[in-house]
Amino acid sequence: MIQRPRGTRDFGPDEMERRRHYEGIMRREAEIFGFREIATPIFEHAELFTIKSGPGILEEMYVFEDKSGRQLTLRPELTAPVIRFFINELSDLPRPLKLFYIGPCFRYERPQSGRFREFYQFGAELIGVKNPESDAEVIALAHSIISRIGLEGYRIRIGHIGILRDLLKRNGIDGDDAALILQKLDKKSYDEARQLMQQKKINEDSIREIIEITSISGSPDILKQTRHLRGEAIEYLQDLVDILEIMGVTNIAIDLGVVRGLDYYTGMVFEIEVPSLGTEKQVCGGGSYSLAELFGGEKVFSTGFAIGFDRTLLALEKQGAKISRKRIDVFVIPLHEDLRLKGFEIVTKLRKVGISADIDLMRRSLQKNLKYASSTGARYSILLGPKELQENSIILRNMDTGVQRQIRIEEIATEIRSERPESV
Amino acid sequence: MIQRPRGTRDFGPDEMERRRHYEGIMRREAEIFGFREIATPIFEHAELFTIKSGPGILEEMYVFEDKSGRQLTLRPELTAPVIRFFINELSDLPRPLKLFYIGPCFRYERPQSGRFREFYQFGAELIGVKNPESDAEVIALAHSIISRIGLEGYRIRIGHIGILRDLLKRNGIDGDDAALILQKLDKKSYDEARQLMQQKKINEDSIREIIEITSISGSPDILKQTRHLRGEAIEYLQDLVDILEIMGVTNIAIDLGVVRGLDYYTGMVFEIEVPSLGTEKQVCGGGSYSLAELFGGEKVFSTGFAIGFDRTLLALEKQGAKISRKRIDVFVIPLHEDLRLKGFEIVTKLRKVGISADIDLMRRSLQKNLKYASSTGARYSILLGPKELQENSIILRNMDTGVQRQIRIEEIATEIRSERPESV
Repeated sequence: MIQRPRGTRDFGPDEMERRRHYEGIMRREAEIFGFREIATPIFEHAELFTIKSGPGILEEMYVFEDKSGRQLTLRPELTAPVIRFFINELSDLPRPLKLFYIGPCFRYERPQSGRFREFYQFGAELIGVKNPESDAEVIALAHSIISRIGLEGYRIRIGHIGILRDLLKRNGIDGDDAALILQKLDKKSYDEARQLMQQKKINEDSIREIIEITSISGSPDILKQTRHLRGEAIEYLQDLVDILEIMGVTNIAIDLGVVRGLDYYTGMVFEIEVPSLGTEKQVCGGGSYSLAELFGGEKVFSTGFAIGFDRTLLALEKQGAKISRKRIDVFVIPLHEDLRLKGFEIVTKLRKVGISADIDLMRRSLQKNLKYASSTGARYSILLGPKELQENSIILRNMDTGVQRQIRIEEIATEIRSERPESV
Repeated sequence: MIQRPRGTRDFGPDEMERRRHYEGIMRREAEIFGFREIATPIFEHAELFTIKSGPGILEEMYVFEDKSGRQLTLRPELTAPVIRFFINELSDLPRPLKLFYIGPCFRYERPQSGRFREFYQFGAELIGVKNPESDAEVIALAHSIISRIGLEGYRIRIGHIGILRDLLKRNGIDGDDAALILQKLDKKSYDEARQLMQQKKINEDSIREIIEITSISGSPDILKQTRHLRGEAIEYLQDLVDILEIMGVTNIAIDLGVVRGLDYYTGMVFEIEVPSLGTEKQVCGGGSYSLAELFGGEKVFSTGFAIGFDRTLLALEKQGAKISRKRIDVFVIPLHEDLRLKGFEIVTKLRKVGISADIDLMRRSLQKNLKYASSTGARYSILLGPKELQENSIILRNMDTGVQRQIRIEEIATEIRSERPESV
């Protein structure tokens, strides 16, 4: 038997219904915030991602060549494609641009719990502005989505990469040197970071201060309380926090240890995590960045985030979240071979008016048909018998209670609609 | 500037809204018919498709190797993955299984009008049964989807591959030999088909009959009227046509020239075409087949179809079909810097109750904000001025009429909802 490739998944009807349900909530919430959906190709030129993340990423991507020898890759993430699209075709639209997307991404790595080689991301990018308002808008959307799908016990950690960058700059370090140090700090490899800073002749006081800052975390009050927190970035964070509070985003912590090693991150960075998920606790990551000029466009500020769709669903599952299965309204069972055509006539009429209806396609006995109807979650069965049909009627059987009643054919739709809860 | 790969597309907000709109109609219609959605990975082991379609397909696929040297490929179509999934995990579910899917597929070929290297298919498979009822159900779904999205001037051509297969078999030809002849007939290469049959020593009368049959097409009445049409397959088609008629599928033609060269097609085959599309007129193809045993499963009959999503949308566009853009309900404009926080408070309240709301994120002038609000299609703007706020009020501006009125903050939601047409 042929198996699906390692690290990929198939989604059956129940799982897919669950995924579409949550995807729908996310999409709707993004639209409520004024974001609009876009989509980009499944594969891109590999250089799009090496320019963004360095050649190391080639190892983690599915790379292949087109017939002219150009390197293509399955997209490992969606921010770079969205910004490429923006530069290519959307840069004339009124700004800010509020865009969102959902789709599969690919990462060539050892499959493990909660991580797949094919995984889904929901993300949003707000393009063309950088200030506390726009950053707040993006964090509030991420928060609102996570909250609207019913995820519990999550927290938002917000940092600002400008604080460390400024400090390093004041000590004469920027560019690749700064990036390397920030990468070490991001990974909490303080000894290595310290060594690098010593090599660069940063004085011990500054080194201590830099490392101390990355350990600052707590409620937003620390912005006012901590002594060496001063300057533009701190004021910026304070403004941001004030807006978030008004927007009802209150479960936030300031965490200056949220760092990103990459140059295009320009200021605010944030993460949403669900501690109960353990090592794979991060469900969302975001921040403000400036990526367009790396791809040959003008300099444009953006803020965005990506939610790990699979991990978020895993978290919901762990907390026991359930959705009620969509039920088909009715299953039609002709009780005699000669009534098959009549069955198709009735099923067609019901479908035309938006009632979901199925019919025996296997010429089964009543018993087997009822069993099948029940397995599909049908709310009603319609039994078509010659006697009732002579009176232009059918037997309507409530599949939950087993109660059967004879009703006229033209009353079926009204009858079924009258008690329809949450059907297709 | 980095471009997207050749033959792929980006979808901007308007186009994406259009795609989701039609995708939603298709999904809903499939659900009304009792089909349920599934999804399979973007890439598969290449052998899945070479087993189904022969090694020739490798030339037309994006093929790459995983680190263990196994050949993977971007899926060129979705029937094979669905049947693989069925064998792997779904074969214990009650039958018939009614499944549908929508997603991107990939074909490595010269990009041309209406054909892309990344293209989208919507498809359905009814697994576990083969009779006129199940075939009718599948054709009726395809018809109903095409009709529900508003496509005009399409026609359905139905054939039966059993007729030619039986004739060839009676002349001692089956297996690969039959497949080769059928492929030629499928392409209307009658001279080559004739030569092949002559080589196989089929007598001239039979050759003539076979070629004549592929040219038989017309209204379903020809099933009764044409002299050499007899046998099981013809009776089968007659039964099918009778059910389709009851189901309101009347724009059908019998066309015995609808042939498929591949062995796993077992009986009914059909195509839906929109003649106004010219050479790329086929928007849907389907038929009954038996594929599971090719992949190492038990023998299972299925009937399915795939609709070319892109080509269908192209057809809709050509006939001038328009959808009305989703509009955001309201855009909030603080008229003074100090009122920004108040703006975020109002926007948050509205969003909480499901009203789509946006807000100035760029600290713009009233003039510029109104221009932007108008470009986003906002139905209303809310102007926040200090005077009105003292009275706990705002100015609500109807963006279509330009009429402005002062209303109390707690009345905003009711006011906006009262005249909401088709918003997000």
